[in-house]
Amino acid sequence: MKLVPIGIIHSPCGTAAGTPVQPCFASGIEARVEVFPEYAEGLRDLEGFERIWLLFWCHQARAAQLSVVPYRDCHSHGVFATRAPSRPNPVGMSAVKLLGIRDTVLHVAGVDILNGTPLLDIKPYVSEYDSYAAQRNGWLDNSDARRNIHIADERFFDPVKREP
Amino acid sequence: MKLVPIGIIHSPCGTAAGTPVQPCFASGIEARVEVFPEYAEGLRDLEGFERIWLLFWCHQARAAQLSVVPYRDCHSHGVFATRAPSRPNPVGMSAVKLLGIRDTVLHVAGVDILNGTPLLDIKPYVSEYDSYAAQRNGWLDNSDARRNIHIADERFFDPVKREP
Repeated sequence: MKLVPIGIIHSPCGTAAGTPVQPCFASGIEARVEVFPEYAEGLRDLEGFERIWLLFWCHQARAAQLSVVPYRDCHSHGVFATRAPSRPNPVGMSAVKLLGIRDTVLHVAGVDILNGTPLLDIKPYVSEYDSYAAQRNGWLDNSDARRNIHIADERFFDPVKREP
Repeated sequence: MKLVPIGIIHSPCGTAAGTPVQPCFASGIEARVEVFPEYAEGLRDLEGFERIWLLFWCHQARAAQLSVVPYRDCHSHGVFATRAPSRPNPVGMSAVKLLGIRDTVLHVAGVDILNGTPLLDIKPYVSEYDSYAAQRNGWLDNSDARRNIHIADERFFDPVKREP
């Protein structure tokens, strides 16, 4: 199961420290998503969608940890109960706002993604498929507000790029 | 960028034909998600979440096509403007309902995933991160209801498993 980069995300987030931990905390942050020209045909009709999923390779995440202390709590949880990037398969996903497309460059907002991140996939965000009002949000329902951080630090960051 | 399977999805969907095209059309379909024992620690505290994302390798998807006629329309669109599985990186994602966990087996409902599909990741579904009422849903807003199919056929299916 090998992945190919289909593009690169150019964002103002140069380091983990200071980067919002989720798109919902990143409304002011815009980025350019460069899709490689050979995939141009795949972008047809994408512009009609208000929001899109970006799937990406967390290229500067530390090696996988099965227990992590996430940003939004001060207790340890299983990594699959968190969105931390240090996972066995470090694939991130973010629902970002699509502002426009020019040729093969997407202009997006609400970006919690590091500059230079390899892009793996784009999918349309479809409310009917993706939007649920979940009543139970696990440990997040009881997390300690004093430690409920919206901006990342270096805890999951490795300046050496993870094997491409 | 190499992926490792962290488990296998055991579902009643043996072939693409007859499988719902999205979880929202699959409310009656339950499955067992077997997580390999070496990842057991990563599941701690997952049970508190009502819904989870499953990321998986579409192992029986045809080779990538950049233009596709999706199930929910009769016109061709760029593959990145659809959720069709025949993509450059055939990674699927489905927000399914978590009914319970016993040891390392997750019992889930709302499954649009073929039996035997390799599991890549589990993430908690968090309404704050994932739920948006998008006003514009692209071609889906104008798709022809007569060709708006909720159950898959064989168009993206290849009985020979895609390179694991």
